[in-house]
Amino acid sequence: MNYQLVFRILGLLLRVEAVLMIPATLIAFLTGGGDGKAFVLSAVLTFIVGQLLTLLPRKEVKMQARDGYATVALTWVVLSIFGALPYFFSGVIPNYIDAVFETVSGFTTTGATVLTFMEGQPLGILFWRAQTQWMGGMGVLVLALALFPKLGEGSVYLMRAESPGPIKSKLKPRLNDTAKILYIIYIGLTAAEIICLCLAGMPLYDAVIHGFTSISTGGFSVKNASIAAYDSLAIEWIITGFCFLSGINFSMLYFAMLRNFKAVFQSEELKMYVGVTVIASAFIAVNLVVQAGCVFDIETITDAVFQVVTLMTTTGYMTADYALWPSFAQMVLVLVMFLGGCAGSTSGGVKHIRVLLLFKNLKRDVQRILRPRQVTVIKSDGDRVDESTLSSISLFLFAYMVLLLLGMLVVSWDNVGLDAALGASLTCISNVGPGLGVLGPTGNFSILSNFSIIVLTGLMLLGRLEILPLLLLLYPDLWKKK
Amino acid sequence: MNYQLVFRILGLLLRVEAVLMIPATLIAFLTGGGDGKAFVLSAVLTFIVGQLLTLLPRKEVKMQARDGYATVALTWVVLSIFGALPYFFSGVIPNYIDAVFETVSGFTTTGATVLTFMEGQPLGILFWRAQTQWMGGMGVLVLALALFPKLGEGSVYLMRAESPGPIKSKLKPRLNDTAKILYIIYIGLTAAEIICLCLAGMPLYDAVIHGFTSISTGGFSVKNASIAAYDSLAIEWIITGFCFLSGINFSMLYFAMLRNFKAVFQSEELKMYVGVTVIASAFIAVNLVVQAGCVFDIETITDAVFQVVTLMTTTGYMTADYALWPSFAQMVLVLVMFLGGCAGSTSGGVKHIRVLLLFKNLKRDVQRILRPRQVTVIKSDGDRVDESTLSSISLFLFAYMVLLLLGMLVVSWDNVGLDAALGASLTCISNVGPGLGVLGPTGNFSILSNFSIIVLTGLMLLGRLEILPLLLLLYPDLWKKK
Repeated sequence: MNYQLVFRILGLLLRVEAVLMIPATLIAFLTGGGDGKAFVLSAVLTFIVGQLLTLLPRKEVKMQARDGYATVALTWVVLSIFGALPYFFSGVIPNYIDAVFETVSGFTTTGATVLTFMEGQPLGILFWRAQTQWMGGMGVLVLALALFPKLGEGSVYLMRAESPGPIKSKLKPRLNDTAKILYIIYIGLTAAEIICLCLAGMPLYDAVIHGFTSISTGGFSVKNASIAAYDSLAIEWIITGFCFLSGINFSMLYFAMLRNFKAVFQSEELKMYVGVTVIASAFIAVNLVVQAGCVFDIETITDAVFQVVTLMTTTGYMTADYALWPSFAQMVLVLVMFLGGCAGSTSGGVKHIRVLLLFKNLKRDVQRILRPRQVTVIKSDGDRVDESTLSSISLFLFAYMVLLLLGMLVVSWDNVGLDAALGASLTCISNVGPGLGVLGPTGNFSILSNFSIIVLTGLMLLGRLEILPLLLLLYPDLWKKK
Repeated sequence: MNYQLVFRILGLLLRVEAVLMIPATLIAFLTGGGDGKAFVLSAVLTFIVGQLLTLLPRKEVKMQARDGYATVALTWVVLSIFGALPYFFSGVIPNYIDAVFETVSGFTTTGATVLTFMEGQPLGILFWRAQTQWMGGMGVLVLALALFPKLGEGSVYLMRAESPGPIKSKLKPRLNDTAKILYIIYIGLTAAEIICLCLAGMPLYDAVIHGFTSISTGGFSVKNASIAAYDSLAIEWIITGFCFLSGINFSMLYFAMLRNFKAVFQSEELKMYVGVTVIASAFIAVNLVVQAGCVFDIETITDAVFQVVTLMTTTGYMTADYALWPSFAQMVLVLVMFLGGCAGSTSGGVKHIRVLLLFKNLKRDVQRILRPRQVTVIKSDGDRVDESTLSSISLFLFAYMVLLLLGMLVVSWDNVGLDAALGASLTCISNVGPGLGVLGPTGNFSILSNFSIIVLTGLMLLGRLEILPLLLLLYPDLWKKK
């Protein structure tokens, strides 16, 4: 690993993080919630450490793959450790381990929380909490690429390690142009949602918060009852719509902007995403009517579509306590949580394209028995997918499963029931937010032991960075000076 | 598909099945349980259909891979349909769908049951039930190979499709010699266990039943309380020991017979199998002492080791109602149920060797980022594993997961809770037997709907035949006449 290079980027980003604490600081002082000093202290401390790191001696070198992965992994860990300071200094979350959990839940856009009584929390803290999700949604390294075009040659590895999905598409020949386009779409969507929510009658502060946390598919809210608190079908459908858009590959949104609708309609992943949304919502609506005594009306349909979209895009808002729904509806939600959104979106989970390619690969494997000598190439949207990508996707699923089961094992020691253990582990690795059983949408992760909280924090990071960059940190080889 | 060849083998095996109904028929008449006529009727009907199938015109041709897979898949389905007749004709299981479930649960050595009050059932029926497990354990096609050496050239495909595990080892150059050795070990182990159980004070009839159902890792018992009914530490350890042996690759047992201990001790899968048994048992014992108020004594240790071995080898007896154990202990049991035993044993599940190779492959994938140009070969016990085997193993895991989740989805419609849905689906596809929650060791599958029972029956077959042969049946190509 090239320590000078990694530390320099780390220092640069800590300074950016300190600057990004300013809006929350202003809100804290304006609303007089008593959290202002905590923000000043956190920002100053973060800036000083960042400054010190950038003062280290430097030499210009080309970034290698290993440096890119190490930078991404270390950045996410270090930014979370400093991002937790406001919660800790303000006393809102007195246990520092819990504060880091909340911050990681923010940056990874998970949305699992240890906070109770949202309505009583300082507004600066709630703003920072939503803002961590917005920063994490598109990726902090992608942000760095947009801000600092000359981070070092080979910075393609940064983007490769941070962007979700097995197949990377470059929108523009130059990397920082791609990063800029992604951020323009991201900001545009957020602004559009804030305006729509305001028009539907949501207060501005709440609209900004929910704009931040739905476009990033994070799911933090300022209300205990989440979106149910507003009791408005218009707001629910606006949020459903924007969450749905945020779960789509941003390249497709870019193509749509360029009026290249052919590319959009040809996307196999998008077709699957739309199909799963419709089928899962229909399954749940029917189940609610048949088994839960619901009437087949617009409210039942809204609840079904809202929960499917918010959980599949791994946002994690709620309008209904789905932990009380029949087993079948809950199982459908587990499946969509596992699946997640599209690659190249802000959502988490395994991603549709991976499952699609796994099915194609499985089909080929079965056919191989019938025609052993036939060589078949697997295609995605007309392009050939090479064998090493296919192999990596299968292994990604294996690693995902192993981590999911390990998470369940650790949480189960807290004796919360197997459904809650499954929910907690799945919601963290898929970056969804709420779980099942006692850790369902009305539950709270503060009931778990410190050890479970630490492991779940790790799972959220592993899920967001799609496992490999963090696993690499375990390799002694990576830490060798080059 | 070569219909003549497939039908001929099918007819041959139906005739064998009819003959194998004779012992249960004799027991039925000797004990006067009223089930004798049902057996005679079933045996005659089965023999006649078998005879008709073998009368079809035949020509000698070489068997192709597709014929082997199709024969295996069809044989298991057809033998189960006829094997269910005694339950149905005797009125012990009046619903024919349930009767087929019970038979498939037997042949696949699962051990899930719709029967209640074992102590009140006719002894002939209970004998047939245990015997189906014993027949299914080593495989009915392997039996055919041992009995009829000249089934057709290329019958290696039969064995390949029916034996569990990704890597096939031939013990002898000639296939039917291998089949004979396997059956000799199988019969030897069964006889040894029956003798041990009798010496420990178990009645002869019960000893034979439990000998049949533990060496086949099936798990059917003649008691409602399963092995707990005998309340004997000696019996529990004898069964633990023989189940443990039955979960080991039979090649290793053969090598041990030949005093080739070097091969045995070098087996990576065996090391993992022993390691997992020890660690899982220790985890559960500690959990029971810390959270369930158990004393750390021989009984707690026996319960822990017994349940780990019986569920990991996918036998599924019980000495304790583990559905009442703390979440952590239950989670450990879920993990070992998922894992299963060794390849080439009578057990089900994913198998240790697959998970071991997946870990090796994942490790290589992570290392590839650090050294992109390095070509690494994955070895198992010193032998190179080729890439297509590695790919098939990953895809096997994917198919396993998809089927597990689909099974959960179907069972969840019966609103039994997610833990019970997980348990039911996992226990069937892994061929274990008892599930979790309301379908735990004291529960019963008769509470499920017909649709769930049909799907779970399919999962048991898919699990036993390791998915591919049955998936092939869905391909129109397979049914084309050649």
